Amino acid sequence: MQNVILGFHAIEEALRSGKGRGILYVSRKSSRIESLVELAEQKNIPVKRTGDDTLGKLAGKDAEHRGALYVQTVAKKRYKDLSDFIESKGEQQPSLVLVLDGITDPQNLGAILRSADQFGVDLVLLPERRSAKVNTTVNKTSAGASSYVPVLVVKNLRRSISDLKQAGYWVYGADVQGLPLQDVDFADRAVLVMGAEGKGLSRIILEECDQTATIPTAGHVDSLNVSVAAGIILYEMRRP
Amino acid sequence: MQNVILGFHAIEEALRSGKGRGILYVSRKSSRIESLVELAEQKNIPVKRTGDDTLGKLAGKDAEHRGALYVQTVAKKRYKDLSDFIESKGEQQPSLVLVLDGITDPQNLGAILRSADQFGVDLVLLPERRSAKVNTTVNKTSAGASSYVPVLVVKNLRRSISDLKQAGYWVYGADVQGLPLQDVDFADRAVLVMGAEGKGLSRIILEECDQTATIPTAGHVDSLNVSVAAGIILYEMRRP
Repeated sequence: MQNVILGFHAIEEALRSGKGRGILYVSRKSSRIESLVELAEQKNIPVKRTGDDTLGKLAGKDAEHRGALYVQTVAKKRYKDLSDFIESKGEQQPSLVLVLDGITDPQNLGAILRSADQFGVDLVLLPERRSAKVNTTVNKTSAGASSYVPVLVVKNLRRSISDLKQAGYWVYGADVQGLPLQDVDFADRAVLVMGAEGKGLSRIILEECDQTATIPTAGHVDSLNVSVAAGIILYEMRRP
Repeated sequence: MQNVILGFHAIEEALRSGKGRGILYVSRKSSRIESLVELAEQKNIPVKRTGDDTLGKLAGKDAEHRGALYVQTVAKKRYKDLSDFIESKGEQQPSLVLVLDGITDPQNLGAILRSADQFGVDLVLLPERRSAKVNTTVNKTSAGASSYVPVLVVKNLRRSISDLKQAGYWVYGADVQGLPLQDVDFADRAVLVMGAEGKGLSRIILEECDQTATIPTAGHVDSLNVSVAAGIILYEMRRP
């Protein structure tokens, strides 16, 4: 699997991590770019000096490369489908699945994938419709984390959640009407479902939840940014 | 003080909150816009139907209004300067100050102000240089929260932090080398300092910190999105 990574910070992370192999493409000269070249050389990663047009093609339209781009070949754990994931986890292994129902902003998806990586999420499920895709923008805003977190796109989110329940997972939904987050006792095999910002979870998804959790807040506006809310809940799930 | 609020979600929040008074300007017809008009009418907030050009002027350049805009007059607590804030809080009153050192992305600033509102931050301090400003983009991405959170822009962040210490505040810095977040015992009068993403706190700011805190994570990339990290620490500070 190949990832195209843009943005100095994301490229630096990807080079530094040493995970996956790749090629660093640079088309301009600056101290920032030269420091990436140096880092690549330290890590024995090949560097290609080429033109802006080559980088433009690799980055794809709508993406700005600013003179550096890293094409990374990642051997991340891949699952064919949800059954493959469920089987590979066996019946007892602790496991955390994050379901994103209707996150359409790529910046938010990128930030959430970054948190998913940081808090050891085993799988992210996205619906085919009404969702941002894992594209170059998301790779960038995820600071490279999208290379590490297994993501599956599924047709029917409700059915996937139901399959996870059948396999012994407990399903937790983020909802304003829920139990205060710090009082929720999360199971070792857990699914966290986050809904669209400003809308929350749809009724049919809510019906699949074993428990709902609320982040106790006292502000004037009714909700946190969805990537912040996801980060807080994942933090609490991993809190000793 | 007047805030120009753009974006359906942000406008809806602002209308619903009932805080502050204002005028809803609409220049187009759609079910989304009509639902805002209906909400304004329920709240006895005047509605003006006008043209795209009027909204364009109110929104300012670089901002997209999509046919609706809310000009809100807010009576939020305002502080002349940091001394004014410190005096108004007296010597005993619990108080939480958030210092943002070098947050340049308006989306991140917006999300952080939203969290600041949700977790009852009393004051946000921004440096004059190397920082996003509270502008229309930030108002929008903060979903209106920027109307509620007092913000001061200061010339010298280090000196401001030092003044707060003099006034009995404890200063906590977010840093990768810190104590695990859940083990930090936060004082009732606290300052939380967040540094720039990818860079962390500068040395001179770090020297002012009484304690540093780290969010325990185990990912491949080295950090969370800064607005996610700020949200998690504020959550932990308010956690019962």
